[in-house]
Amino acid sequence: MMMNSMRLLSRLISSAKFSSNVEAKTPKIDDILRQTRVFTNADVVEYSKVSHDSNPLHFDTQCAQNAGFRDRIVHGMLVASLFPQIISSHFPGAVYRTQTLVFKQPVYIGEEITAEVQAIVVRKSKERHYAIFSTRCLKDGDILVIDGEASTILAYDNN
Amino acid sequence: MMMNSMRLLSRLISSAKFSSNVEAKTPKIDDILRQTRVFTNADVVEYSKVSHDSNPLHFDTQCAQNAGFRDRIVHGMLVASLFPQIISSHFPGAVYRTQTLVFKQPVYIGEEITAEVQAIVVRKSKERHYAIFSTRCLKDGDILVIDGEASTILAYDNN
Repeated sequence: MMMNSMRLLSRLISSAKFSSNVEAKTPKIDDILRQTRVFTNADVVEYSKVSHDSNPLHFDTQCAQNAGFRDRIVHGMLVASLFPQIISSHFPGAVYRTQTLVFKQPVYIGEEITAEVQAIVVRKSKERHYAIFSTRCLKDGDILVIDGEASTILAYDNN
Repeated sequence: MMMNSMRLLSRLISSAKFSSNVEAKTPKIDDILRQTRVFTNADVVEYSKVSHDSNPLHFDTQCAQNAGFRDRIVHGMLVASLFPQIISSHFPGAVYRTQTLVFKQPVYIGEEITAEVQAIVVRKSKERHYAIFSTRCLKDGDILVIDGEASTILAYDNN
């Protein structure tokens, strides 16, 4: 399984068009990169295994209801992983510098979540290209579930 | 395998001593909760599978070196998952409200990382107990790799 995973990831990386072309790595201000995902129970279980985070909010309906939710919720940090995933799929090799996260609404298993990443600052300093992105997750079209910002180094002129 | 995972998690949750005792859920200011973990290549592969984040920084040594690192790095958001993991293992049912993350140094596969979580503000408002934690990851004892803060709701007086 390990070898299959490595092969799969190897294919994903190859198909991500990793390029040394700096021009291609500069995002346009205002362009919004979007990705939609439904987090399943299997995702919650797999994320708990790799993060070792077995907060009963994610596995025990009664605990989730005691906390004011209608059911078990998806780990916030798993939902937030959509941001570096979107950024790195568009800008392979991007390095994360900071991320702020405000968890405003719960994400329930099975809900369709749309993550939006929008460059709000792009600048070049010496040989590095920096970008700051507004990062948001929405459900049902317009309910903000996670808000925040990410700053990244997108490219290096060292070819 | 899915059923085994669920049984494992069920045991973990049972052993987490989920309690409705509010007193037990209030952290002491200045107490530092610590956890040490070494992230393996298998962790990076599993995290990539569940997050769909296959940034070549984590799989392609040349890409990592082009970005100025000496080797492939662990996903920052995987390392940062130590914070909710520590908080929820001490305060089962804790709800994350915000997290700030500054990724200051790379984490390489195989490095021993110590996460530290320290309550800096604890307050009770209506039926909820809030806490703000300083959240840091260190390597080699004193090299700060991730800095930030988390704010949480730790307990509900609705028993």
